[in-house]
Amino acid sequence: MKDEKSKIDWKNKLHEIIYEADTREGKLFDILLIIIIIFSVILIMLESVKSFDANHHDILLTLEWIVTIFFTIEYIARIVCIKKPLKYIFSFYGIIDFLSTIPLYLSYILAGSQVLLAVRAFRLLRVFRILKLVQFLGEASQLGKALKASRAKITVFLFAVLIVSVMLGTLMYIIEGDEAGFTSIPTSIYWTIVTLTTVGYGDIAPITPIGQFIATVIMLLGYGIIAVPTGIVTVEFGKRAKKGSGDESIEHFVHVNTQACPSCGKEGHRDDAKHCFNCGSFLNE
Amino acid sequence: MKDEKSKIDWKNKLHEIIYEADTREGKLFDILLIIIIIFSVILIMLESVKSFDANHHDILLTLEWIVTIFFTIEYIARIVCIKKPLKYIFSFYGIIDFLSTIPLYLSYILAGSQVLLAVRAFRLLRVFRILKLVQFLGEASQLGKALKASRAKITVFLFAVLIVSVMLGTLMYIIEGDEAGFTSIPTSIYWTIVTLTTVGYGDIAPITPIGQFIATVIMLLGYGIIAVPTGIVTVEFGKRAKKGSGDESIEHFVHVNTQACPSCGKEGHRDDAKHCFNCGSFLNE
Amino acid sequence: MKDEKSKIDWKNKLHEIIYEADTREGKLFDILLIIIIIFSVILIMLESVKSFDANHHDILLTLEWIVTIFFTIEYIARIVCIKKPLKYIFSFYGIIDFLSTIPLYLSYILAGSQVLLAVRAFRLLRVFRILKLVQFLGEASQLGKALKASRAKITVFLFAVLIVSVMLGTLMYIIEGDEAGFTSIPTSIYWTIVTLTTVGYGDIAPITPIGQFIATVIMLLGYGIIAVPTGIVTVEFGKRAKKGSGDESIEHFVHVNTQACPSCGKEGHRDDAKHCFNCGSFLNE
Amino acid sequence: MKDEKSKIDWKNKLHEIIYEADTREGKLFDILLIIIIIFSVILIMLESVKSFDANHHDILLTLEWIVTIFFTIEYIARIVCIKKPLKYIFSFYGIIDFLSTIPLYLSYILAGSQVLLAVRAFRLLRVFRILKLVQFLGEASQLGKALKASRAKITVFLFAVLIVSVMLGTLMYIIEGDEAGFTSIPTSIYWTIVTLTTVGYGDIAPITPIGQFIATVIMLLGYGIIAVPTGIVTVEFGKRAKKGSGDESIEHFVHVNTQACPSCGKEGHRDDAKHCFNCGSFLNE
Repeated sequence: MKDEKSKIDWKNKLHEIIYEADTREGKLFDILLIIIIIFSVILIMLESVKSFDANHHDILLTLEWIVTIFFTIEYIARIVCIKKPLKYIFSFYGIIDFLSTIPLYLSYILAGSQVLLAVRAFRLLRVFRILKLVQFLGEASQLGKALKASRAKITVFLFAVLIVSVMLGTLMYIIEGDEAGFTSIPTSIYWTIVTLTTVGYGDIAPITPIGQFIATVIMLLGYGIIAVPTGIVTVEFGKRAKKGSGDESIEHFVHVNTQACPSCGKEGHRDDAKHCFNCGSFLNE
Repeated sequence: MKDEKSKIDWKNKLHEIIYEADTREGKLFDILLIIIIIFSVILIMLESVKSFDANHHDILLTLEWIVTIFFTIEYIARIVCIKKPLKYIFSFYGIIDFLSTIPLYLSYILAGSQVLLAVRAFRLLRVFRILKLVQFLGEASQLGKALKASRAKITVFLFAVLIVSVMLGTLMYIIEGDEAGFTSIPTSIYWTIVTLTTVGYGDIAPITPIGQFIATVIMLLGYGIIAVPTGIVTVEFGKRAKKGSGDESIEHFVHVNTQACPSCGKEGHRDDAKHCFNCGSFLNE
Repeated sequence: MKDEKSKIDWKNKLHEIIYEADTREGKLFDILLIIIIIFSVILIMLESVKSFDANHHDILLTLEWIVTIFFTIEYIARIVCIKKPLKYIFSFYGIIDFLSTIPLYLSYILAGSQVLLAVRAFRLLRVFRILKLVQFLGEASQLGKALKASRAKITVFLFAVLIVSVMLGTLMYIIEGDEAGFTSIPTSIYWTIVTLTTVGYGDIAPITPIGQFIATVIMLLGYGIIAVPTGIVTVEFGKRAKKGSGDESIEHFVHVNTQACPSCGKEGHRDDAKHCFNCGSFLNE
Repeated sequence: MKDEKSKIDWKNKLHEIIYEADTREGKLFDILLIIIIIFSVILIMLESVKSFDANHHDILLTLEWIVTIFFTIEYIARIVCIKKPLKYIFSFYGIIDFLSTIPLYLSYILAGSQVLLAVRAFRLLRVFRILKLVQFLGEASQLGKALKASRAKITVFLFAVLIVSVMLGTLMYIIEGDEAGFTSIPTSIYWTIVTLTTVGYGDIAPITPIGQFIATVIMLLGYGIIAVPTGIVTVEFGKRAKKGSGDESIEHFVHVNTQACPSCGKEGHRDDAKHCFNCGSFLNE
């Protein structure tokens, strides 16, 4: 029974290091992890530069193997120390972690499977988790909340933009023809969005006077309606800034930490929490 | 007389299903309609992709016929069940509905009339009507009201932008010549708006030093004056947000539904309305 | 003496029609003038379209003569009926009016002087004067005041943008070379502003990795600092909107009209003004 | 000992002229300096224009020598009259001043070292110091403070933009290939930022339908998230404007001058200051 207990203790310790960032070891692991992730992303970038890959293929492959082995160990450790492994495995981060680990192994079975390496760029999202370590936490969550609050308005706006794009794109397809690059309605809609968002590649551009006139209208429209998302977000930020400055509203906020429930994985527990607010199981001290 | 009454009942029932969205059948019809409209738009897109059309012409034509027949039945039903058919026929939606229905029939008489199919994209505007079903209603109308309130300011702004464009466009036509693509004053004005709105296709670009200098001024102008519409709309949104947050102003709003007057077609009646607020005729229960 | 007086009366009448817009005749004249100006601008545009000019040269020339004769009469009338003609002749509008009138006469003496016709586009600025007739007056002056109030901030901002452009442009000239189109420092600065304002023609684009990296930094910079003019103008609009809504501030505004002083030409007199606020001479009733 | 004192007096006088701008001589020197800096930058620009340099090489070289000698004297004077010369020499401005002075001397030893001349553009930053002379001081520092206050939020925002760019850039590299110009992941990320910031050069553009679809998503994303920095800065400006307008806050501001401490070089002393607020040493009267 003592053995059993020491095993649980060991698992808890590992869980604390890998999943949390409140202890010194946890912080160190997170920083190490993010460095290796950034390093692995740079590695993939260098591999994609043909001239560089041709000259340094062996070094790149060796480094790739080191990263892959580290990711493999990390992936196994994550599964071992959590109480409900399946929940992690099929979570968003679990799938990303898995897909970031396997490409090199797969490349010996399936040719061309090395493209999967690109998935690794998504591991950068973990940076946001690490960000919680630093003082930016408050800022990031404030930004997130403001964007979330204006979600409905932005959806309506995007919807309207899309319908206008389909209508104007179809119109431009009829007016301009294949000659100007408007080869099909989807291409024409693509051009409309390129113009409306003021990107303007210039790979497709109207030639006929009436086409150029409608293009002008689309541009002015795009130039004008950029005011809408800006207005929405600014007002939302303004509200939040006003709320935040009043002391009476401070009581609605409590400090949460990065501790993750060892059972269900939920984060964001109050500092004085004893049970997980989600599944009710005991949290590590 | 009983026959007469049952006929009116039947018409009222149909009117409720097609024009309104408060009953289960009405909602179902609206959802079905929007699905078919989106499907018909996708159909036209696929037809415009030459390589796709070449391989699947027969299937596309068959599907086109199905959509056309559905639209035909819907159009006739809309005319039959409304009390003042002419009002619908010559309304904006009535004309769009008609133009969306006829192209396939016309194509057997007039060659090339199939381009009219593109009009069908405008039927997507009905989506906004369907939108009333969902919770976005409030958001959309709030956006609309804010834009409406700043209409005058935006008109003045657009007017100023246009005059500046004509002046600078004419100037650039004199400075740069045919060589750089500034072949005529209208083309030159088109280029000015492309630059002012920061779209920048690059199909026309100044070559002479003085032309590039003026282009720089136009860019900085465009980069700066985008602040004007943004500022206008943001302030307008801000006002509305403040108004909306005060409880005392809530009494000014009553809930309206999507019921349409069977006689004049006006929508937006109060839930407890018995008469149409526009023409005074009885509304269906 | 009676003759003298009737002459003055006649002059005053003409002054009222041409320079002011408070009487019915004044309004009519202003509307007629703006129509002819717009017509003359369209005429110049059509002349610049080579294919159109080739086919309709005679009609265009005849119409051009009609416009020129009208402008000549108007210019002489403006000089005759004002008390201090020199003030008008050397004012901004006076010079524009003169330059818009002479090109056709000049074209018989100097070849190529017809390019001067383009100056006529500047006569469109008179539209802003006519605008005073309509309800947009309040809106336009509000926009103008807000922009004027943030003038200092915007100047500082533009100054900073220009210095950054010179520095980054010089840097890019050293990094990229003639090959990528960065042929000289001025061209390189031109490219920097094209990028910073997110216009992005694409006629010049970096090729080297380090050049592309700095280009990325410039883009993000431009994308970010567009917030500065927007923020400035929005806050200024917001202040004005708040001020405008409070009733206590309304007393600072008095209604002014479009009457122009017959002696010095200053506009914007109070409705109850008897003397010109600028030169003190009597105003027409 | 009297000699010693007159030497210190002479040094103090020189320090006042070169480093400060409160006396007439100080102002004159600053204006002279900024004129020469602007002149030297224009000189480098002209040298970079090949056709101009070929025709006027001798004049340009002579003028270059005059500027270099002036800068040399100024640099030596700056070192001589300051109490802690090393602090100046290794300060940002000190290094820029040094690098702006040496290129012409170096060009006789090292070929191609004339590119260093471009560093001179950075001397333009001194303009900001001169700006303190004029009324823009308040505006500029207000802008700077607002940007500083929103620094954290903007960093989070830029961070998120970069991660999204890496992910979407990698995705586009897999979807599009070498054919469309997406030759490597870094190039692909460069393209993503070009699109996200709505610059859109068009040197690289997607060809495949799915690539164009993702490009559309990136554009709409970029079009939408420009609202975030704008919102942040606008709210920050708004706060500051509100603070500034209240009279009770006016007491927090005292007038500072451009006097620089002769010992440590810190600026921004109160008009009535006797000691440097930084190092405590006596300030010149």
